[in-house]
Amino acid sequence: MPYHAPVDDFTFLFDHVVGLDQVRATDRFEEASSDITAAILTEAGKMCEEVMAPLQRKGDLNPAYLENGVVRTSPGFADGFKAIAEGGWVGITADPAHGGMGLPMALNTAVNEMMSAACLSLQLAPLMGQGQIEALEHHASDTLKDIYLPKLISGAWTGTMNLTEPQAGSDVGALSTKAEDNGDGSFSVTGQKIYITWGDNDFAENVCHLVLARLPGAPQGTKGISLFLVPKFIPDADGNPGKANSLKVVSLEHKLGLHGSPTCVMQYDGAQGWLVGPEQGGMAAMFTMMNNARLGVGTQGVGIAEGAFQHALAYAMDRKQGRTQGPTGSIVDHADVRRMLASMKADVFAARAIALSCAVAIDMHNATGEAEWKARAAFLTPIAKAFGTDVGIDVAQQGVQVHGGMGFIEETGAAQFYRDVRVTSIYEGTNGIQAMDLVARKMMDGGEAAHALIDEIEEQAEAARERFPRMGEAVWQASENLREATEWLVSQQDMEDRFAGAVPYLRAFARVLGGHLHLKAALADGVGGPREKLARFYIQRLLPEHEGQLVHAQAGAKALMALSADELAA
Amino acid sequence: MPYHAPVDDFTFLFDHVVGLDQVRATDRFEEASSDITAAILTEAGKMCEEVMAPLQRKGDLNPAYLENGVVRTSPGFADGFKAIAEGGWVGITADPAHGGMGLPMALNTAVNEMMSAACLSLQLAPLMGQGQIEALEHHASDTLKDIYLPKLISGAWTGTMNLTEPQAGSDVGALSTKAEDNGDGSFSVTGQKIYITWGDNDFAENVCHLVLARLPGAPQGTKGISLFLVPKFIPDADGNPGKANSLKVVSLEHKLGLHGSPTCVMQYDGAQGWLVGPEQGGMAAMFTMMNNARLGVGTQGVGIAEGAFQHALAYAMDRKQGRTQGPTGSIVDHADVRRMLASMKADVFAARAIALSCAVAIDMHNATGEAEWKARAAFLTPIAKAFGTDVGIDVAQQGVQVHGGMGFIEETGAAQFYRDVRVTSIYEGTNGIQAMDLVARKMMDGGEAAHALIDEIEEQAEAARERFPRMGEAVWQASENLREATEWLVSQQDMEDRFAGAVPYLRAFARVLGGHLHLKAALADGVGGPREKLARFYIQRLLPEHEGQLVHAQAGAKALMALSADELAA
Repeated sequence: MPYHAPVDDFTFLFDHVVGLDQVRATDRFEEASSDITAAILTEAGKMCEEVMAPLQRKGDLNPAYLENGVVRTSPGFADGFKAIAEGGWVGITADPAHGGMGLPMALNTAVNEMMSAACLSLQLAPLMGQGQIEALEHHASDTLKDIYLPKLISGAWTGTMNLTEPQAGSDVGALSTKAEDNGDGSFSVTGQKIYITWGDNDFAENVCHLVLARLPGAPQGTKGISLFLVPKFIPDADGNPGKANSLKVVSLEHKLGLHGSPTCVMQYDGAQGWLVGPEQGGMAAMFTMMNNARLGVGTQGVGIAEGAFQHALAYAMDRKQGRTQGPTGSIVDHADVRRMLASMKADVFAARAIALSCAVAIDMHNATGEAEWKARAAFLTPIAKAFGTDVGIDVAQQGVQVHGGMGFIEETGAAQFYRDVRVTSIYEGTNGIQAMDLVARKMMDGGEAAHALIDEIEEQAEAARERFPRMGEAVWQASENLREATEWLVSQQDMEDRFAGAVPYLRAFARVLGGHLHLKAALADGVGGPREKLARFYIQRLLPEHEGQLVHAQAGAKALMALSADELAA
Repeated sequence: MPYHAPVDDFTFLFDHVVGLDQVRATDRFEEASSDITAAILTEAGKMCEEVMAPLQRKGDLNPAYLENGVVRTSPGFADGFKAIAEGGWVGITADPAHGGMGLPMALNTAVNEMMSAACLSLQLAPLMGQGQIEALEHHASDTLKDIYLPKLISGAWTGTMNLTEPQAGSDVGALSTKAEDNGDGSFSVTGQKIYITWGDNDFAENVCHLVLARLPGAPQGTKGISLFLVPKFIPDADGNPGKANSLKVVSLEHKLGLHGSPTCVMQYDGAQGWLVGPEQGGMAAMFTMMNNARLGVGTQGVGIAEGAFQHALAYAMDRKQGRTQGPTGSIVDHADVRRMLASMKADVFAARAIALSCAVAIDMHNATGEAEWKARAAFLTPIAKAFGTDVGIDVAQQGVQVHGGMGFIEETGAAQFYRDVRVTSIYEGTNGIQAMDLVARKMMDGGEAAHALIDEIEEQAEAARERFPRMGEAVWQASENLREATEWLVSQQDMEDRFAGAVPYLRAFARVLGGHLHLKAALADGVGGPREKLARFYIQRLLPEHEGQLVHAQAGAKALMALSADELAA
């Protein structure tokens, strides 16, 4: 499917909406000038359009398969990964000391979005690598860093994350994989892991697994978990892949979508691994990896949404059907089709701006170490993940609808977006888990991070009233509604009362934040500009959704849990 | 996948919510006693559980295929169709004079829902037959009726609807298939039709196609269309299948879902057919068929929603994960999972009650001929179609979410509901078309039918206030909101202003109507009953959605259309 990289949109967002200027003003990211970001967006965008987009349908039709214990990847994927690696797109944020570019997460997020839109199955490979690089940078010993980081960053080797076991999904603390000290600085890892994305491939020299396991005598639950780096081939004295490790791919899953991405069941039989971080410090290391992976998955949702939107718009501009009053004579001039497309585009903008705002907060924390930025990043991460993927699913589903009957026919391609994107609201912590994280852990500060953000929303809305009275007023009122609901949530001592409305609350927060960011775009774009019109559409027609969601958010657990499981089944 | 037919729920709805007693009180349907309806629900439910449900996954894994011009159906489908036919489930509402049961549409709707839940791919075959039977009963000559109706009703022969052509989908008037008078009472039909559901099969003795075509000199657009009955085998003098007709299946579509249902491209090369209804009266005849098919498709959505709900609930009650406060120790005791399941069940109830209310209105019109019932049925049909299928899609998507990572694995079955149901918001008139029908044609009465329904909602809410103050108040207020929005819509002279908000308006109307029907169930169930708890959940947490939708509904076309197609593409 053809894909047009939205480079201008990213540039506008960087310059006028998400405040990349603050990031550029730091010592750490002073090299991320407008010229550099423009060059990278253009170069990566071109690779996505020309190399990755043609692979999307190929991967769907020719799934990865297992042959004699080795994963054979979809046609063209090896060359596709090579292009990603050679462009340097695995290591955009990675430390230059090991070959990375040392550039901001905001830029990485834009590139990840474009790769996701072009071919999500393949994009998962570098995304896993990025998470592993970050975990090693923060938690691995210098020896491990020196061996692994240059290979992972260059894309010579790939990385995976091994958390899930059959009885340990959302409850990762229930895992049973074991590790034993070999006495030589290494450990023997034994157990089975499931849902391992890109657990193997036939294009990298080595595949490096980060595996959660429990040492002898370690406590139950997440506190007793340690993290190990377990390579497919054990590096020799020169750091080159040597002896094969005692691990294998047992089988691949037959999935609804993402057929080009091999999802493996992995078996470790006393495989040799090395500790990353302290003993029983596995969850902290894993959280480093997961937090950014969560933003990465939210960004996947935005990418699929952009791809599905472009695909539906192209169809609507081409398809003639019925009488229209508009100039094109195609269905894009029907009010209901225009409504669908405008909703899709407005939601893509909101979700993209939220993801980039989260990335900027991460960059500012990395550059300044300031606690406020850390809190902002932590607060925005579950919102970016859940809203981005909800928008991805919703826009893909609307994309099918715009196609009418053709949307149900696989050849058209609209259905693939709908299938591929479906898992994004599940993996890296389901969207329910994200929402529970938001209303519990991310409100352990008594709501400080939430209120700081609401204050910002309110201030801008206040200031915007003169130029855009209706939009300013609507966003201002929405911020007040959000403040009230946040105060209610924070005051609930019984976490069940927060959890019962967590998903609607997260959704409402994202809706309002989207209004705030649309308003910012309108202020920069000016009256009558396309972004002002899009903001008006969003704020007038989509933003009101938050009110119903906030009612739901504050309804508590009692009446909900009173409806028993048996009564549900009756 | 196991399926439990919700017989008790149908009985409760018949007796306490949708007013089947009125239908039973008519002469026409006096035989539809409680005993008869209970016996039919039980018998049909058993067939769905035992015969059809085991075919759902088989059809998905073994799609129908084309072999030497003949469709080969999925394993077990021939026996499945035989069981449907032998049960008499094709002809529940059909005229007893030709072998039908002559029972109410409300009962047929319940049976159709159960068949859809059990195996949607196969259920499409009898659904198409039902539409054809109705069209022939109303519009065919006695000769045609005598030949075709007994065969279609017994299920010896099957029926199809042929409307769509590549350039004539939602705009059916653009079709180019031609018919010429043979001078012997028959016509020669030539043209290509696409998306023909069950266009052929290997289990019926004959396949009867209702084909829209244009006679020489007929005007352009829908006014010039005539309807023809074109059989696969031309009946001989004894009414048995004789000579093969000049028609063939050119190809089958490769679809996102419904793999067990062959979707055909049909080619007619001077095929012999017979006129149904007057020349150029094809659309009227087709609308008879389509109106009930629209209710039928809405009912498919409800069926899939019920199936997906049962499937997700069973998983949630079995799956242990994380600490819970509840008694089961499984994820059903997590507040967020309970929220999802309660939402699913509450929406299934609302959509089912709306579909059955629509069916009761059809029955009352058929039994009494009263214009008010006709208007009520006409008004509820697009709501039942669009809301039923939206709920089907939404519940199937939540069903995947409840399964977590397992939901993305095809073996689990959750993904099949999500794939199969997707087309229901598209075929039989997209949900956008339904909404436009609601705010245009169905409001040509100046909003009379809408207001009559709103009056009923308001009256019950008023009366319920004493027993259920909060629920009564909430539904009453919602009916006022709906009244206001309806008045706004009716007063818009430019149809574009209605169309721009048609989908959100339909959705809001369904939400409020769902609240009304939940409230009615609560009144019958009493304080503390499971239906009262479910009503409370719906009215407190889901009903508020209508307010945002009504804002959207009244936003008009101007600002929307000001965002040009080029600006969307920029």
